[in-house]
Amino acid sequence: MKEFFCGTSEITGARFSIHPMSDRFVDIILSSLKETDTTKVWMKSDDVSTCVRGRSEHVFDVVKAIYLNASKGGDHVVLNATFSNGCPGDSAGDAFMAEDSILMNDELSQKINQEVATQFALYPLGFLGYMDVIIDQIKTVDQHGVFSGGVHYASRLDGDAKKVFAALESAFESARNSDSSHIVMTVTMSANSPSRKEGQ
Amino acid sequence: MKEFFCGTSEITGARFSIHPMSDRFVDIILSSLKETDTTKVWMKSDDVSTCVRGRSEHVFDVVKAIYLNASKGGDHVVLNATFSNGCPGDSAGDAFMAEDSILMNDELSQKINQEVATQFALYPLGFLGYMDVIIDQIKTVDQHGVFSGGVHYASRLDGDAKKVFAALESAFESARNSDSSHIVMTVTMSANSPSRKEGQ
Repeated sequence: MKEFFCGTSEITGARFSIHPMSDRFVDIILSSLKETDTTKVWMKSDDVSTCVRGRSEHVFDVVKAIYLNASKGGDHVVLNATFSNGCPGDSAGDAFMAEDSILMNDELSQKINQEVATQFALYPLGFLGYMDVIIDQIKTVDQHGVFSGGVHYASRLDGDAKKVFAALESAFESARNSDSSHIVMTVTMSANSPSRKEGQ
Repeated sequence: MKEFFCGTSEITGARFSIHPMSDRFVDIILSSLKETDTTKVWMKSDDVSTCVRGRSEHVFDVVKAIYLNASKGGDHVVLNATFSNGCPGDSAGDAFMAEDSILMNDELSQKINQEVATQFALYPLGFLGYMDVIIDQIKTVDQHGVFSGGVHYASRLDGDAKKVFAALESAFESARNSDSSHIVMTVTMSANSPSRKEGQ
């Protein structure tokens, strides 16, 4: 039995789940998958989550599109995702690294406007100076105009989902270029929350 | 604006969210909170997640009880949680470290039998030998009889929720005793999934 699978420094992967807080959750999830072009990533779903692997830009493109397609109907939908790059416990398979850089879902995603509240955390592994990488990347998301401050164990981002995803991808890519060879980023993103409406 | 808040080596914290895939999600979440004794932890909810902080045993006791109370009605409910201990970006406040060790929710939790499918990952930070800690703790969960193998970026646990929580807490506590001073553990736990039923 294999104990641990991850990726190489080239492969980016995301393990994520979409949670529509609705009796129609199965339909919402299946529809969002159907509307998303996943031809440039390896993808596998199980009963807990879905894993996509491939070139970093396609992994972000696919997760963003699936989430936007799931939330555009107005239901309260939460994304939980762990992005990973550079895990030493590599498996070379399950990667679509030969694809070009043209994003398959960008045109569709650009048409969907969705306010989201997000908490994310960055974990640069195997590197003593990991707190410096974290602090640098909080500056990166701040430059994108979506940083709303820190909470215990996470940083908060608010704004249009496309802008928030751009900030997250930018922080992840910058962290990959740091002295840490293995980067993990966790994201919890919430759309159409009734709590949010009450607070506004 | 503070950029990053975490805990000291004494304080354990968890940032988590409960996702009932049901139109009744607000009632399910509020009921589960009401039925759980949170007097021995600091707790704060926002529109994205809930944070609990305090002695490690009470943090696990409270997260477990809230999840069991939310899922016992048979709805498909998912827990997403990040447990953390030893973050250097400390804030001393928001901790209930003077409480005793008597668990406030254990009697209630012991009465609830709930099969769950879980994926978890351990991130020992600021430590070059982090992969050794991860591999050691996969052995720990295996000893609890709930380890089902590795998937990309995570390890899978199946069984009764109480056994799975015991394995997770054991792995987290053992990792705290490793040479890594800052331990993060992410958990995605699913109960009553229709996908699960179809697969069985």
